Amino acid sequence: MARFFMAGTNLAGGTAIIRGRDAEHVKVLRLRPGEDVVISDAQGTDYKCRLVETRKDEAEFEIVEVVPCPAEPSVEVSVICGLPKGDKTEYIIQKCVEAGAHDISFFQANRCVARPDAPEKKLERWQRIAEEAAKQSGRGIIPQVGWLEDYAAVLDKAIKKDLAVLLYETGEREGLDTVLNSGGHDIKSAALITGPEGGFAEFEVKLARIAGLRICSMGERILRCETAPVVALTAVMYATGNLS
Amino acid sequence: MARFFMAGTNLAGGTAIIRGRDAEHVKVLRLRPGEDVVISDAQGTDYKCRLVETRKDEAEFEIVEVVPCPAEPSVEVSVICGLPKGDKTEYIIQKCVEAGAHDISFFQANRCVARPDAPEKKLERWQRIAEEAAKQSGRGIIPQVGWLEDYAAVLDKAIKKDLAVLLYETGEREGLDTVLNSGGHDIKSAALITGPEGGFAEFEVKLARIAGLRICSMGERILRCETAPVVALTAVMYATGNLS
Repeated sequence: MARFFMAGTNLAGGTAIIRGRDAEHVKVLRLRPGEDVVISDAQGTDYKCRLVETRKDEAEFEIVEVVPCPAEPSVEVSVICGLPKGDKTEYIIQKCVEAGAHDISFFQANRCVARPDAPEKKLERWQRIAEEAAKQSGRGIIPQVGWLEDYAAVLDKAIKKDLAVLLYETGEREGLDTVLNSGGHDIKSAALITGPEGGFAEFEVKLARIAGLRICSMGERILRCETAPVVALTAVMYATGNLS
Repeated sequence: MARFFMAGTNLAGGTAIIRGRDAEHVKVLRLRPGEDVVISDAQGTDYKCRLVETRKDEAEFEIVEVVPCPAEPSVEVSVICGLPKGDKTEYIIQKCVEAGAHDISFFQANRCVARPDAPEKKLERWQRIAEEAAKQSGRGIIPQVGWLEDYAAVLDKAIKKDLAVLLYETGEREGLDTVLNSGGHDIKSAALITGPEGGFAEFEVKLARIAGLRICSMGERILRCETAPVVALTAVMYATGNLS
């Protein structure tokens, strides 16, 4: 069933009016009166709607049912990644939205190869990728894509969560599974920090440890910087009962 | 530490001689006598070796230690995917090798959009991608990439495993986590079957059910055909204690 987020949608009484780009999309889909779509409020609620008619610049729907979006996980996971090179950023956004991330942020880690002048300028494009992936995968929110100014902001964001993990490929670490098994279904929010191509600098790991983050391993296989976030996120989804 | 698979390597006594493409690679890396590399026998055993000297077409190493490759998981997971379009095949191979797959196969599902004349001709290229990913992620084997002739071959391969799962996005299903939690650490082999862009045809699911496969869900988020194998594989790795 086609899904829309309700930017440009007017919900009043039992009626939803879609305008703008989404109204064009309704036409492209050649939906006929009587056919159903889902309009998400992007805050976890789905409005199941039936098309009444399409007009010049808008489409009118009857609201049939209002339900919590079944695709939203019970845990809010913030994925935080050292900015990778090239299109890996887009890949991380797309896959983490599909896999259930609540929000995704990037930051300039010490060993980042990518050193863009103004990464915040890319946010609009990144956000569009998140929106597309959210529609496609049936999410009830559009995960926010953000840029964190420095490593202090990364740690600050992470320590506010029930569980804050930095994934590290060497040295003294706990198994991610051990850490998740002990918290398990009770975790309501988590932050997962992964490094760029060159990995974390030692001082970044040390600071994270001092800040109280769990330094975790995902086994001895070296994951690429664009693979690690999806694998870690999937582990959290599994451990919190959101993969069933 | 640089890793090599031992095709073209001669192991005799305490000495390893690398020839061919890998010997060139030793030169490209500008390794010096005394530096260490790992030579894998591609069957789960790592030979830690120290460079003695490079000669015209070969490099001589002293074998320092022989150990089981720590990156190999305790479970052998066969990933079996309906052939997707374009470069998604390569993506699936790369990510599943990183995430610990034992082998990866593709087949022509009923709703495959991709209908290549001779997919078996692509096997050489696919296998190279698997080898590269295996080197990069520190695997102790080179996962085999295969082509299964028909759906009967898919089911036949799957039912030989301790756990055989078909991932399906609708209808009557069990949670993948429930199924894995009940088997857990005891699973030594598993098959994970995922569909192409268009999903499975109903008869494919029905046949799988009759053959005894578990029809499983991974939550209500719709995963792209190239995302589902990695997520399912990660869930198996988590459940079997291979993500720590």
